[in-house]
Amino acid sequence: MSGRPQLAPVLRRLRLARTARATPTSLSRQAALQQSLARPARCFSNSRSQCFQKTPAVAAGQAKFTSETYPDIKRDARFAQLTEDHVAYFRGLLGSESAVLDGVTNSNAADDIEPFNTDWMRKYRGHCQLVLKPGSTDEVSKILKYCNDNMLAVVPQGGNTGLVGGSVPVFDEIVINMSRMNQILEFDEVSGTLVAEAGCILEVADQFLASKGYIFPLDLGAKGSCHIGGNVSTNAGGLRLLRYGSLHGTVLGIEAVLADGTVVDDLCKLRKNNTGYDLKQLFIGAEGTIGIITKVSIQCPQRSPAQNVAFFGLESFDQVQLAFREAKGQLSEILSAFELMDEGSQALVRQVTGNKSPLEGQYPFYCLIETSGSNADHDSEKLGAFLEDVMEKGIVVDGTLAQDETQIKSLWAWREGITEALSHLGGTYKYDVSIPLKELYQLVEDTRARVDAAGLLGDTDDFPVRAVVGYGHMGDANLHLNVSTRRMDPRVEKVLEPFIYEWIAERQGSISAEHGLGVMKKKFIGYSRNPTMVGLMKNIKTTFDPNGILNPYKYL
Amino acid sequence: MSGRPQLAPVLRRLRLARTARATPTSLSRQAALQQSLARPARCFSNSRSQCFQKTPAVAAGQAKFTSETYPDIKRDARFAQLTEDHVAYFRGLLGSESAVLDGVTNSNAADDIEPFNTDWMRKYRGHCQLVLKPGSTDEVSKILKYCNDNMLAVVPQGGNTGLVGGSVPVFDEIVINMSRMNQILEFDEVSGTLVAEAGCILEVADQFLASKGYIFPLDLGAKGSCHIGGNVSTNAGGLRLLRYGSLHGTVLGIEAVLADGTVVDDLCKLRKNNTGYDLKQLFIGAEGTIGIITKVSIQCPQRSPAQNVAFFGLESFDQVQLAFREAKGQLSEILSAFELMDEGSQALVRQVTGNKSPLEGQYPFYCLIETSGSNADHDSEKLGAFLEDVMEKGIVVDGTLAQDETQIKSLWAWREGITEALSHLGGTYKYDVSIPLKELYQLVEDTRARVDAAGLLGDTDDFPVRAVVGYGHMGDANLHLNVSTRRMDPRVEKVLEPFIYEWIAERQGSISAEHGLGVMKKKFIGYSRNPTMVGLMKNIKTTFDPNGILNPYKYL
Repeated sequence: MSGRPQLAPVLRRLRLARTARATPTSLSRQAALQQSLARPARCFSNSRSQCFQKTPAVAAGQAKFTSETYPDIKRDARFAQLTEDHVAYFRGLLGSESAVLDGVTNSNAADDIEPFNTDWMRKYRGHCQLVLKPGSTDEVSKILKYCNDNMLAVVPQGGNTGLVGGSVPVFDEIVINMSRMNQILEFDEVSGTLVAEAGCILEVADQFLASKGYIFPLDLGAKGSCHIGGNVSTNAGGLRLLRYGSLHGTVLGIEAVLADGTVVDDLCKLRKNNTGYDLKQLFIGAEGTIGIITKVSIQCPQRSPAQNVAFFGLESFDQVQLAFREAKGQLSEILSAFELMDEGSQALVRQVTGNKSPLEGQYPFYCLIETSGSNADHDSEKLGAFLEDVMEKGIVVDGTLAQDETQIKSLWAWREGITEALSHLGGTYKYDVSIPLKELYQLVEDTRARVDAAGLLGDTDDFPVRAVVGYGHMGDANLHLNVSTRRMDPRVEKVLEPFIYEWIAERQGSISAEHGLGVMKKKFIGYSRNPTMVGLMKNIKTTFDPNGILNPYKYL
Repeated sequence: MSGRPQLAPVLRRLRLARTARATPTSLSRQAALQQSLARPARCFSNSRSQCFQKTPAVAAGQAKFTSETYPDIKRDARFAQLTEDHVAYFRGLLGSESAVLDGVTNSNAADDIEPFNTDWMRKYRGHCQLVLKPGSTDEVSKILKYCNDNMLAVVPQGGNTGLVGGSVPVFDEIVINMSRMNQILEFDEVSGTLVAEAGCILEVADQFLASKGYIFPLDLGAKGSCHIGGNVSTNAGGLRLLRYGSLHGTVLGIEAVLADGTVVDDLCKLRKNNTGYDLKQLFIGAEGTIGIITKVSIQCPQRSPAQNVAFFGLESFDQVQLAFREAKGQLSEILSAFELMDEGSQALVRQVTGNKSPLEGQYPFYCLIETSGSNADHDSEKLGAFLEDVMEKGIVVDGTLAQDETQIKSLWAWREGITEALSHLGGTYKYDVSIPLKELYQLVEDTRARVDAAGLLGDTDDFPVRAVVGYGHMGDANLHLNVSTRRMDPRVEKVLEPFIYEWIAERQGSISAEHGLGVMKKKFIGYSRNPTMVGLMKNIKTTFDPNGILNPYKYL
C-alpha cells in the first residue's frame, strides 16, 4: 500500500450533503449510501497472515534454550533418559522411516529435529532428541502407554504456532507431532458438523468448508499452519469469536488419548447431549496436559456471502463504548468484528509504512467494524444507517467505508499492521489481556502515566520507551497493550511488572485472554485464578495424568 | 383458538399468481410478499407456558414415593439420620424462621415441606424432613461444611421444574432451596454481561434484560418458575439454542460451593480467559452433584426487535432436510427456530382442539420457522424470498406466514400444543433424544413399524397404542418421540425398550438431549457414554465430593 488509499469518503460526503441541504430525507441519504457501497468482498486473510511472519529481529541466529532463559525450571528426575531400546520400540511401532526423527542413535538428525524443538518466534528452544509422528489414534495410544510405563515425558505438538512456548520441549521430552493425522473425516451438509483429525490445518478445513458453503467458526493469522487439534487444545480465540462464540460452544466432541494410552471416544456430533459431565470441555484449552486430542467434531455455520468494512475516528473511549453498543444494537446479527486502535498505535503504522490514514484528521481512537451477512443490500443499508446515526449523535466524528475487496484489505491493514510496525521499531513488551469493557483502555493510560512518571517515556533517544499503545478485539474485551522501546533498559520491566498483572487482578481480568499459559505465563496464573481454583486444576491434572508425563514444566 | 385461524395464505396466493402470470418478476413477488407481511410481534412465551401446566391425570392424588417406584435404590447407610441437634445448628445459622422448614422436630410441617419433596409432574417424591433456604453464599458454604462433616446428604433445588427427578430427594436428604438467593447483581450495558444469584427466576432475568434492550440467551416453557442456577446446573437447552448456542458457550463464570463448603469463585465476566482448565464447564449440566452453583455470569445478546413466523407442509423428511439447509443458508443470521412436526402429531392436536390446520391440505411433515432480527423489512424480505425459493424448487408444498402477534402465537400453538394434546388422550411414552440429523425421523418410523408388527398399533380400542409420533427442535437435531397409548399394557414397554435406547446407541445419539439424567435416566447413561467416560466422570465426582453427599442416588 503506497500513498493515500483511494477509499471513498462516504461519510464526509454525507456531512457535506447535510450542510448543503437543510433537511435531506433519511431515505435519500440511505440511497446515496447504498449507491456508494460496492458489493463487499469476502476474504482478508492475506493481510492478517502478514502479522504472522517471523520478524528479522527474532529470526536471526540460534534461539536461546528455554532451560537457560528460565534457569529456575529443572528437569524432573523421575523421567527416564531416552535409550536405543526406546527408539527401537517406536521404530517398530510406527514403521515408516519418516515417522521417527531419531537424534538418539543418529547424531546427524539434529538439524531435522531443530524445527520441532523451536517455536516460530524462536523464543523457546528445547533439547528434544526424538520426534514421533503417529498416523492413527491407535499409534498415539501405543506411544503414550509405552511412555507412561517407561516414564518418558512428551510434548504434544500441532502446527507449532503458539505464542507462549507450550508446543515445544523444555528438556528432552519426546515431541509427538500430529501432522500426519490431517484428514477431514466427515461432513454433514445439512447440520454443518465437521469431523476431522487433530492435525488437519485450519485453512485446509476452512477451504473445504467454503466449497460446501460453510465456514470454520474460528479464524486467526496462523491459519495456514496451525492445526485444529492445537486450536482446540489452546482454546484459540481469534477474529470470529464475537460472531460465532468460543470453542467451548462450537466444539461438539473430541477423541483424545490419555497419558496411559486410554482412548476417550467423545466424538459426539450432537448439539444437545445431557448425559453426564461434559468432559471434552476440560480438554479445550488444556494445552495437551491431560491428554492428546486426536479428532475433533465441530459445529460450522453457513458462510456469509456479504461482507462490509467501515473505519472511523472517535474522540474518547466513552464514545468507543457508545459506538460498540449502537453497533451491537443496530448491526446485531450481522456484526462480525469490532476492533479498537488508539492514535498511538496508528501513528506507529503511519511512521513505519509511510501511508496516510484513511481518515483526514487524527483522533484519539479508531474503530474498525466488519459485517457479514446473507444479503449484501440489507447489510449495506444497515451499516449505512448505523454510521449515519452514530455521526448524527456525535458518537463518531469521521469515517469511511470500503468499496471493494482491495479497500477491505487496506482498512484491515491499519489494524493488522500494528504488530508488524511495532516489530520494525525495536523491542516491545506485549501483554494480551482481558479486562471488563468499561476499564479496558484505562490500563493503557495508567501504564503510560506510570512509565512517564518514571521518566522513561519521550520522543528523543534519551528515553528508553517510545510509546505505550493499545489496540485489540473490543468486541471480546481483549486488549493488546504494547510498550514500544528503543533499547533494553531494566528499569522499564520493573515499572511494568508486576504493576500490570496486579492492575488486571484487581479488576478480575485475565492475564492471558487467548494465548494460554505455556511456559511463559505458568508462574502468573495466580493473578487470574485463585488458589482454590488452581488447587482443583492440579487435582484434575493428577487424575488424568498421574505420572505427569504430558507437557511437563508448563501450564500449572 | 376456535375454528380456522385467519392466517393469510400468502404462499397459496403466490402460487395462484404464478399460474395467472407467465413470468412474474422476482421483485414484484417480493413486493407482494412484503405487503402481506405485517410488522412482526415479539413474544410468544404465553403459548409455550401452557405446555408446562400440570395435567389433570398427574396432578390428581398423592404422588408415589420414588423409593417405591425404584425399589432397587437403597438408602446409603453412611449418611446420618437428622437429629434435633442438626436442626438447632441450622436454625442458629439461618436465623429467620422462614429459612428453615423443620419436619424433624415439628410433625405439623409435613404439608409445608411436601412441595419441596415432590416434583411438578408429581412423578417423584422423597421423604425429606428438612428444607433450608440460605440467603447468601456464606450460608450455603456453612450448611455444606456442616453436612459434609456430619455425613448429611443434600439435594440442591432451584425452581423444581426438572423432568427427570433430579431436584427432589429420594430418601431423607436435606433440600437446599435457592429461592432466597434471587437477586440480579450486576449488568454491563455495553458488554451485555449479566451477573445474578442462582435463585433468580429466568423470566425475571429476561424481563430485566428486556428493559435494557437485551435478551437472556435461553428460553423455555418453565421460564416463569425455573431458576437460572437450575438452568445452568441442568444445561437447559430450550428454544433459543439454534440461535444463541448452548450454555457452555454463553455462561462466562459461576460461583459455586463444593461439598466441603469451599467457595469456588469463578465468577468471570470475560469472554476470553485462557488461564487453566475451564472448571465452570464441569458444573454446567452436573445437576448439583459436584457443587451448588450460587451465582452465574452470562453473556446476553441484544434483543431483536423484529420477529416473523412461517409454517409449511412438506412431502418427505428428505424435503425437511433440504428446507432446513436452505433456511440456514438464506435466513442464516436471522433464523431463530426451525421446528419439526409430523402429521401424526398434528392430527392429535386437531383431534383434541377441534381446530383446523393453518394449511388447507395434509402433509407428512410440517415445519415452523421463526426469524429474529434487527430490521423487520429486511427480515420479511429474506423470509419471503426463502419461501418463494423453496416452493419454486418443490421443497415446500404449501405454507403460511403469520401477520401479527396473535397469528404468531396461533402458529406456535400447533407446535407447542402437541404435549398438551397427548396428555389429554391418555398415557404417553416420551423419549427426549438427539440423533444425527439424517436419521432423526427414522427412529419414529422404525419404532412405529415395530409397534405395528407386534400387533399393538391401531385405530380401534383393540389396540393399546393409538399413535407413534415425532416432533422437536430440528435445528438442534433434538427429537421428541412420543408413543400415545389408550391404556397400560406391559407389552408396549417391552417392544419399546431397550429397542429405542439400543437404536440410539448404534447411531451415537443421546438418550437425553436436554433433560439430563436425574433419577430417571441414571441407569441408561451407558447407552450414550462409554465405560471409559463414565469412569472418568466417577473420578471427577469423587474428586469434588469424596463423601458423596451432593444429590445422591442420581446422575451417575
